[in-house]
Amino acid sequence: MPRKNAFYAQSGGVTAVINASACGVIETARKHRDKIGKVYAGRNGIIGALREELIDTSKESKSAIHGLLTTPSGAFGSCRHKLKSVSENRAEYERLIDVFKAHNIGYFFYNGGGDSADTCLKVSQLSESLGYPIQAIHVPKTIDNDLPLTDNCPGFGSVAKYIAISTREAALDVASMCETSTKVFILEVMGRHAGWIAAAGGLAAEKEGDAPHIILFPEIPFDRKKFIARARRAVKQHGYCVVVASEGTQTKDGRFLAESGLKDAFGHSQLGGLAPLLAQMIKDETGYKYHWAVADYLQRSARHIASQTDVDQAYALGEAAVELAVKGENAVMPCIVRGKGKRYRWSIGTAPLDAVANVEKMMPRNYITRDGFGITDLGRAYLAPLIQGEAYPDYKNGMPRYTTLKNEMVPKKLKKTFKV
Amino acid sequence: MPRKNAFYAQSGGVTAVINASACGVIETARKHRDKIGKVYAGRNGIIGALREELIDTSKESKSAIHGLLTTPSGAFGSCRHKLKSVSENRAEYERLIDVFKAHNIGYFFYNGGGDSADTCLKVSQLSESLGYPIQAIHVPKTIDNDLPLTDNCPGFGSVAKYIAISTREAALDVASMCETSTKVFILEVMGRHAGWIAAAGGLAAEKEGDAPHIILFPEIPFDRKKFIARARRAVKQHGYCVVVASEGTQTKDGRFLAESGLKDAFGHSQLGGLAPLLAQMIKDETGYKYHWAVADYLQRSARHIASQTDVDQAYALGEAAVELAVKGENAVMPCIVRGKGKRYRWSIGTAPLDAVANVEKMMPRNYITRDGFGITDLGRAYLAPLIQGEAYPDYKNGMPRYTTLKNEMVPKKLKKTFKV
Repeated sequence: MPRKNAFYAQSGGVTAVINASACGVIETARKHRDKIGKVYAGRNGIIGALREELIDTSKESKSAIHGLLTTPSGAFGSCRHKLKSVSENRAEYERLIDVFKAHNIGYFFYNGGGDSADTCLKVSQLSESLGYPIQAIHVPKTIDNDLPLTDNCPGFGSVAKYIAISTREAALDVASMCETSTKVFILEVMGRHAGWIAAAGGLAAEKEGDAPHIILFPEIPFDRKKFIARARRAVKQHGYCVVVASEGTQTKDGRFLAESGLKDAFGHSQLGGLAPLLAQMIKDETGYKYHWAVADYLQRSARHIASQTDVDQAYALGEAAVELAVKGENAVMPCIVRGKGKRYRWSIGTAPLDAVANVEKMMPRNYITRDGFGITDLGRAYLAPLIQGEAYPDYKNGMPRYTTLKNEMVPKKLKKTFKV
Repeated sequence: MPRKNAFYAQSGGVTAVINASACGVIETARKHRDKIGKVYAGRNGIIGALREELIDTSKESKSAIHGLLTTPSGAFGSCRHKLKSVSENRAEYERLIDVFKAHNIGYFFYNGGGDSADTCLKVSQLSESLGYPIQAIHVPKTIDNDLPLTDNCPGFGSVAKYIAISTREAALDVASMCETSTKVFILEVMGRHAGWIAAAGGLAAEKEGDAPHIILFPEIPFDRKKFIARARRAVKQHGYCVVVASEGTQTKDGRFLAESGLKDAFGHSQLGGLAPLLAQMIKDETGYKYHWAVADYLQRSARHIASQTDVDQAYALGEAAVELAVKGENAVMPCIVRGKGKRYRWSIGTAPLDAVANVEKMMPRNYITRDGFGITDLGRAYLAPLIQGEAYPDYKNGMPRYTTLKNEMVPKKLKKTFKV
């Protein structure tokens, strides 16, 4: 088999550890020079392939590539560009194959969530039918933790750790001030459709009564009365109430609470997110003094307190993707398999892409307490191992040393440009 | 001199390192058993003294007290209770002295900001005139960094570190996604009157063009046109724009921007903070996709990434307060003195309380760039040393091991109760 180059791209929302997967892919590819030539990375993800904007990672030093292990976000850029179905936009797929052909690319490593698993599968199928077969391997990544067939998704463990720690820290703050000041604190976290991240806030509690006292999941329809009653009870029992709220918290009829039609004086839709809305609700109903925080991108880029387990798994999946490719596999995704037994162990398995693409894994109902406001022991047993270990970056002058790559572009070979 | 007990109280908004000062006070007092009996801590700050709710710290083990060094927030509780002037509420001061007398308290260590420096001074003065002289020592603490006569304030360095790191991390996230997604990211930080914390966001930048591209200070009147123009320029030049905005950002006529009279459909005042308001402004004027975060309590409780310099100084000031008391000092505050020369050095000095109380130290104008949107090299030189070193807490099961004290109460001796 003649030596082929590889294409690697980051897709969708970036994470604290997606670069660790990139590091795994590139370092492992460099060990297989007999089969894999250069690794080209898509500039800004898949649109880099469409535009023939390829980054030559062979220009990066060993230490720069290794620095990716401790650098958050997407070192080559990512994008939110979902390829349409082949029937809707065959030209895009054909363009991809043209670019791959022009640059002698035989391996496609796509690092993303459910959408990109689907794209990855289609590239594999279409390349076959177009007579230029590409081995397409999906490297899982999503803070939403909603991919099927893998026990968990790289990126999630670090967000979970950040949210659990932040919840505990903010709770200590509120607890020490509640006698005369803030009584209710609300932390809004990511997760539009699945409550995994909000659930991780539950790890802040060690014993009965510990914060958070209320978790709001997208899976549990929001009930204003119950919410207020629960907040009142917490303040009466503990002096304060900490709420971790998923941005995807919904009403019974499936509308996002944060988009409930509120307008400001100028007729703009509700500016704020969910947290200020819940805070106002608390104020109106109880008069309690409140504070709220919205972690937003801080939570998914917080490499400074990444989970070591998450970093290890992200790297291992990138490594495994290349090993699978070298073994001739196609249209697969390496995944995390949790060992049986009390002590947490994990290994790498393989899942066929047609079973991964476009399937969302929701929180099992039995991970959420019956009242809908907390996590069960079962949920805790699932979540706790994922935040183990602190993968600290190096520091210089009090700041983390994050790697910036040179990102030298590969000279274009195609005459045609392609508008994305 | 007969042995007297000491009273220690935490005042106002808590920080990541106020317990480190408590640790310094208690550990040092335990070394001076010949002069200092027990250290009683006010439950929820000064109102603990008024209510005769004293915590007996002698019941805590050596390791529990040492654990305070790595535990954020106020271990004994804090409060926002400003004592009125003596003429307005002499009863409160007399009550304090009664409680101190009943419990043989001769030392008053008050750990707080400008208001508590004032209270501390008054207690010293009034106790003298009431014939039960108390040595009152103020231990500085405030994330706002606005106390005079000390080079900086414990609590600030850790917030500064957190904000600088979070800004850099979120900026990497936005930079990698901006081609197809978010172009403007706004991080709202604390600081109602002084822009020290917002300024710390500037430490995220290492070279020209790095984020943050815009810092909004309370000291610089907000100019909508200039703000929008600057955001546009950053997006054009770099593809994205990161804004660090002080919650205290004001209009030219001194009104907080976040309280600018906006109402929602129900007539409620603006729910959100400054960040969503700025985001909407960006959206209206430019159409750029935005995201925003409000760090709120997360920033001041983030012990997981505290500045080692800050922790060291917080401890040293607690220690110095006790040493000053033992030497017979009164109505003073130990403070941080910055050494001369290029290499950062600090030592402990002493400031008289009458020069500290009720004086606010604002950001010097020459720490802010001429255009009002950034920090100068001078500002950077002041700020950078304060975030040096990472004072990591210990971890267990992936979570920081923060100390919870027993907080056993001292039996009450007074018959009278006092309503606070």
